[in-house]
Amino acid sequence: MPTNAFALQKQPSVPEGFQLSGIHCGIKSNPEKEDLTIILSDRAATACGVYTENLVRAAPVTLDQARTPNRDTRAVVINSGNANACTGERGLGDAKQMCQLLAESCGLAAEQVLVLSTGIIGVFLPMEVIGRGIAEAAGQLKSDEQALLAAARGMMTTDTVPKLASCRVPTGSSRDITITGLAKGAAMIGPRMATMLGIVMTDAAIAPDVAQSLLASVVAETFNCIHVDGHMSTNDSVLLLANGAANREVSGGEMLTAFRDGVCAVCAELARSIPADGEGATHLITIAVRGCRDEQAARSIARTIADSPLVKTAIAGADPNWGRIISAAGYAGVPFDAHQMELKLNGYLLFSASCPVAFPVDEVSQSIRDNRDVLIELTFGEGSAETQFWTTDLTEEYVRLNADYHT
Amino acid sequence: MPTNAFALQKQPSVPEGFQLSGIHCGIKSNPEKEDLTIILSDRAATACGVYTENLVRAAPVTLDQARTPNRDTRAVVINSGNANACTGERGLGDAKQMCQLLAESCGLAAEQVLVLSTGIIGVFLPMEVIGRGIAEAAGQLKSDEQALLAAARGMMTTDTVPKLASCRVPTGSSRDITITGLAKGAAMIGPRMATMLGIVMTDAAIAPDVAQSLLASVVAETFNCIHVDGHMSTNDSVLLLANGAANREVSGGEMLTAFRDGVCAVCAELARSIPADGEGATHLITIAVRGCRDEQAARSIARTIADSPLVKTAIAGADPNWGRIISAAGYAGVPFDAHQMELKLNGYLLFSASCPVAFPVDEVSQSIRDNRDVLIELTFGEGSAETQFWTTDLTEEYVRLNADYHT
Repeated sequence: MPTNAFALQKQPSVPEGFQLSGIHCGIKSNPEKEDLTIILSDRAATACGVYTENLVRAAPVTLDQARTPNRDTRAVVINSGNANACTGERGLGDAKQMCQLLAESCGLAAEQVLVLSTGIIGVFLPMEVIGRGIAEAAGQLKSDEQALLAAARGMMTTDTVPKLASCRVPTGSSRDITITGLAKGAAMIGPRMATMLGIVMTDAAIAPDVAQSLLASVVAETFNCIHVDGHMSTNDSVLLLANGAANREVSGGEMLTAFRDGVCAVCAELARSIPADGEGATHLITIAVRGCRDEQAARSIARTIADSPLVKTAIAGADPNWGRIISAAGYAGVPFDAHQMELKLNGYLLFSASCPVAFPVDEVSQSIRDNRDVLIELTFGEGSAETQFWTTDLTEEYVRLNADYHT
Repeated sequence: MPTNAFALQKQPSVPEGFQLSGIHCGIKSNPEKEDLTIILSDRAATACGVYTENLVRAAPVTLDQARTPNRDTRAVVINSGNANACTGERGLGDAKQMCQLLAESCGLAAEQVLVLSTGIIGVFLPMEVIGRGIAEAAGQLKSDEQALLAAARGMMTTDTVPKLASCRVPTGSSRDITITGLAKGAAMIGPRMATMLGIVMTDAAIAPDVAQSLLASVVAETFNCIHVDGHMSTNDSVLLLANGAANREVSGGEMLTAFRDGVCAVCAELARSIPADGEGATHLITIAVRGCRDEQAARSIARTIADSPLVKTAIAGADPNWGRIISAAGYAGVPFDAHQMELKLNGYLLFSASCPVAFPVDEVSQSIRDNRDVLIELTFGEGSAETQFWTTDLTEEYVRLNADYHT
């Protein structure tokens, strides 16, 4: 997990050569909520994507997977409120139609357009409404901050805040590279919702194969290190568009390293913002695992702890329950010497050398109660690999929201 | 998962040659709750065990693992209220001492005794109290149903009912084989608790290596097919003791098949009783997965569905949410053709051929509300392997019980 190699910009900005819009077209019933977003590049962009590994894939995922990586993408159309998942052949036709409609509105070829959908599953898209919406949104494309915010809002489902992040990568010349990302994540509240989308835009130039492997490795360290309820959705997708408008080619060496750091910083911020926005959640838990043989081992342990309802309910209850954390680490399927394991919670040492340590229980409990952020640090003596994982606590409110049945 | 090849006895009985007792010795604060159990065989018994795969293992697990399988076990001593886990070298010494004390009381060698503990973790055993308790319990050994019930109660932690099951396997002669099992499982409520224990006693004779592989395969189909919160404990153990008092050798052929069916029936009943006893739970969910390539594939899918908080909260809310079930199956890591997948809930067809089916939503919801048992049936077109899994729903009460912090 990257640290802040690059400071994020206070005000996210639009990379050169991109225009965006976000409008309400009528998929969502509330007329004040945007439900359709368009992103347009003024020239052909390299596009690549990382998609859900779920075998049950939504139509837009199937379509985009077939179209990426490439070096000739011009636009992405995104709707929220309906995931176009579990909709069979008709759903695939609708996804293609969305691309076609946008292509007609903007004078592109349909193959130059990618599509993302998020929202309820198992319901056909209202194509008439979407068709009118695409024409309207295509007429409102802009490259200012207002348009960027509207685009981020057009992706939201149960998110309470739009999720944006932006950074500049110095190039040594007067023209920096800008990397800007948008994401939506319903965090814990996803009744029949298809969950996580991310889009990263940049004005750097990068070859499709380089971009694809870079994005895959960044997603492994960022979006794949968040864990809310472990339920992988039918629609999870992260796209990267690089249009080269800043006239900087990223192909290798220091420039590639710096560019990767920038993409990583943007994705890490977006990833972290997803569990942070869990309405049912009262804590954002960071799980730092260190001293492992390799990163995969560290991630398996972090993920197993993040997946334990007993750990998550303990944090909800401000209970510094070391036993649940230690025993979750023990069943992660990763070999380790338990005698060299050390556990800290919010900086307090709770467990060391196979035994619990005497610690001020009420003080640690109070520190959980007083802070929305909770830090679990688990250190092993197996090597030097480390990772960070973010998850939420498990509250009665989470259960209430997800058990609330209404058709 | 076995069907009822053997009908279970209405009144569990003690196999020949076994005596039991269960008393309150003072580990638990409530004097009306048993916390110490002894099982004694009047002759050397074959003993084998299947233990937690957690790397953080309690002292009794370490000790029993070193001592099994063998053909010379005489007794098991079990305490509840304290798991003797995360207690380092001193904990291992205490576990040995428990065996030694029982050996002295009953005239055995310490190596002929196995030990199990369950309860809070990270606290040293009160050895004085346990020492007096072992002497007292050794004086009360009996082979009647009262003693069997007291022994089952002596293993309980947050269980609300003792868990027993018993069956007879016909041998063709006048003397049947009896198989009787005891279990404890705290189901969903395990604040800092080490969770699941099972003991199967039989008066059949069986060689240690045959017994060991039989028990391992039975556990895979029974105790490993329950899933409450996916948190594998430091103490999970299932022991089998076979003392041969019925003078029937089980070595192969039809007799071995019949014996295995009997052990399976007993273990299945005990396993099912654990999630059924989840106090926070309002539903016992049976997940039947069929038509898979092999059993492992079927189990992976069933386990993934059982592990999804979104599925479990949906059932708590009487929501026939096919989308959550289908998408959980999709990320189980098992390849399948989604077009051939079919989902039923309480007998209603919800999903077929990649699309949701029109179904009477309110009627299905009502059927969930009206019944404690819920049946999820998922059928694939990959082969003929199948499995059954049991889990509970996820309720606000579960979170309340597990988040309730008091030192």
